[in-house]
Amino acid sequence: MTSHTTQGPAHHAAEHARSVAEHAAAVVELLRPLRTTDRIETLPLSQALGRGLVGDVAAPISLPPFANSQMDGYAVRSADIPDAGADLGIMSPVPAGSSPQPLEPGTAAPIMTGAMIPAGADAVVPIEKAVPDHFLASVDGQTVMLPATAPGTFVRFPGSDIRAGERALAAGTCLGPAQLGLLAALGLPEVAVYKVVTVLLVTTGDEVVEPGLPLPPGKIYDSNGTLLEAAMKQAGLAVRRTGISTDNPAELQALLRTEGRDADLIVTTGGVSKGAYEVVRQAMADQPVDFLHVAMQPGGPQGLGTFDGVPFVGFPGNPVSCLVSFEMFLRPALSELLGAPARRLPLRARLDLGGAGGKLTSPRHKHQVRRGSLQPDGTVRLEGGESSHLMHALAGSNVLVHVPSGVTELAGGDEVEVWML
Amino acid sequence: MTSHTTQGPAHHAAEHARSVAEHAAAVVELLRPLRTTDRIETLPLSQALGRGLVGDVAAPISLPPFANSQMDGYAVRSADIPDAGADLGIMSPVPAGSSPQPLEPGTAAPIMTGAMIPAGADAVVPIEKAVPDHFLASVDGQTVMLPATAPGTFVRFPGSDIRAGERALAAGTCLGPAQLGLLAALGLPEVAVYKVVTVLLVTTGDEVVEPGLPLPPGKIYDSNGTLLEAAMKQAGLAVRRTGISTDNPAELQALLRTEGRDADLIVTTGGVSKGAYEVVRQAMADQPVDFLHVAMQPGGPQGLGTFDGVPFVGFPGNPVSCLVSFEMFLRPALSELLGAPARRLPLRARLDLGGAGGKLTSPRHKHQVRRGSLQPDGTVRLEGGESSHLMHALAGSNVLVHVPSGVTELAGGDEVEVWML
Repeated sequence: MTSHTTQGPAHHAAEHARSVAEHAAAVVELLRPLRTTDRIETLPLSQALGRGLVGDVAAPISLPPFANSQMDGYAVRSADIPDAGADLGIMSPVPAGSSPQPLEPGTAAPIMTGAMIPAGADAVVPIEKAVPDHFLASVDGQTVMLPATAPGTFVRFPGSDIRAGERALAAGTCLGPAQLGLLAALGLPEVAVYKVVTVLLVTTGDEVVEPGLPLPPGKIYDSNGTLLEAAMKQAGLAVRRTGISTDNPAELQALLRTEGRDADLIVTTGGVSKGAYEVVRQAMADQPVDFLHVAMQPGGPQGLGTFDGVPFVGFPGNPVSCLVSFEMFLRPALSELLGAPARRLPLRARLDLGGAGGKLTSPRHKHQVRRGSLQPDGTVRLEGGESSHLMHALAGSNVLVHVPSGVTELAGGDEVEVWML
Repeated sequence: MTSHTTQGPAHHAAEHARSVAEHAAAVVELLRPLRTTDRIETLPLSQALGRGLVGDVAAPISLPPFANSQMDGYAVRSADIPDAGADLGIMSPVPAGSSPQPLEPGTAAPIMTGAMIPAGADAVVPIEKAVPDHFLASVDGQTVMLPATAPGTFVRFPGSDIRAGERALAAGTCLGPAQLGLLAALGLPEVAVYKVVTVLLVTTGDEVVEPGLPLPPGKIYDSNGTLLEAAMKQAGLAVRRTGISTDNPAELQALLRTEGRDADLIVTTGGVSKGAYEVVRQAMADQPVDFLHVAMQPGGPQGLGTFDGVPFVGFPGNPVSCLVSFEMFLRPALSELLGAPARRLPLRARLDLGGAGGKLTSPRHKHQVRRGSLQPDGTVRLEGGESSHLMHALAGSNVLVHVPSGVTELAGGDEVEVWML
């Protein structure tokens, strides 16, 4: 097997075992060309959900932009009301959105939540504490009895959420509802984000059959394509699927040349291991692609390089290995480079191994990634064993459970890092 | 204000304070008509991401469908190899996808990961443990030295993941990548799911201005529309936006009549409180809509009912209140009824109040929902105060922090329930 070094530190053989961190860094370097100025676009907020922010955004205005009322009530000068309370003349009401007259001394102005505090006023008395405790239809010549109140009470001060000029969002932020809402609150109608990455996804293998077709003996249905397409779409990628490629290398090469030309990234599944029929390895023989082993279980065999200049990653053939490879390498690289998808939040959880004496075992020199379900009490139960073909167990999981290299055994109650799926 | 009871237990006044659980149940009842047979569709797996499963799915086949190899190696009869190992004649290789000949006694068959175990074989010896430790180009007359192995070693048995007839997925499951991958692995090319719910989203208020326009004194930019549209889209809803409706009730009524006719749900923001200018209350005066107060902070004032027969919920006007209302009521109701979006996972976390003596306070009779950021060490920090206008603080949060009714004070280190956003 020909092996070329495409970037990063040189390695010596196709079977050199890389650490997870080393391989993750290599995937980042492979995809770094996706972070270029010609891959930036400016979109209306309603089209930017799930995209990564290109640059820091400074607040063009303060939030709130002006002092406003936190309650429906009466705007007052707090100094006008002695401890025993006071009867104040009622001024014209201040609805939200209006620009009120200054408050005359010794008066109170009915004010609605969010309305601008009149000049001179420094506090709001909620309507429930007023006598009468409802707004009057006509305020002419009327008075209201109000209790004493401290300056600043129920006033939202300008800039108390963010001041003009401060950084509102950092470059690389993944834009979810709250981040987009903040941009809207700041009056910004559009935002510069990275373009969507288009992936050509090819599942390979003579043994896999499209769902819905008859299943000959010895064959299995292709789940990798559906699994990875969904994971990639959920991560905001545009996915182009081909049919299943056979184990004929020339056929796979032709397919990649036809379909991969304008993709940003090619991802294959299967055919990267040490077996006698490894179609992806064979199809990549003349390309600058490394096939190597990452010290990870599952998902050890990996391919990485370029095919006719298009970035390429080759995942192993088992579905759980595919998803683990995506979550460990591709998704974090995209998060780091393009700000989207959002990073998985790492959490600590205690292992529930279901009774006394249970053990989780892991190879000493591998980072094991198990699947589990995080329980509301903060413990995590393993779903299925370590084997990478367990789709049903994966479908019952909501976290990946990390057992780092060097850890060979864990008991119930031991703490592990989990990533929410 | 006219108030009608649309469903559920009668209540006595518009200002009756409901518990969070009571209001959540009322929203479920309001939306129950969305779970009908004419709102079911059968989709290819590639279009079903994020949808809710209508019925239980039983596995039509076992997974794996047949005994197969977990490794690249040699399929053997374990009884053929004594403790000292044995030299065995090499049979024709078994690639994945083939239907192999039975294994003759005293021989070994090269076998690839995922390939069917030949009849007679009961174990696989990994290639690394064979001498020679690589597959031979020609096997004619060759032998391989293999160590003793236990029956079943590196064999994936049929049905070890799931057996034919067992329940693969339960009705109401939200279909993510792993669930869709499982359906594919089972050979199922399509799936019955609930149709997408279309929401008409209307933000109201004379005080709000579209982002990008000049901001007159006393006014603020509309963030509710952007925030809720994004939250709803992320939850799989189809969202139709109108422009901002003014505080003129007739105008809002006309807008809802024109735009809301074929929506599944109308959601408004603002105009549901006790102020003097509550446009949503006024526009709903002739409709069977309740305006009430939920014992929750923020998000207390809520509207619920139907407008010209279309289900309607009215959220308060502050952005944080809107998001909390969506997360507390609308999202869980859709999850319960339609299986999608996925439920928020509740987690326990310890409060980090940033140093000694800090306190979180909450009204005794309200369920307070604060915003926070969950840290990798399992603690949660509050982002911003309790006030509902703090968009910048919301944008820095990744969880909602629950302080149930009855709890008035929490200290650093106290445990709280959080929901991952």
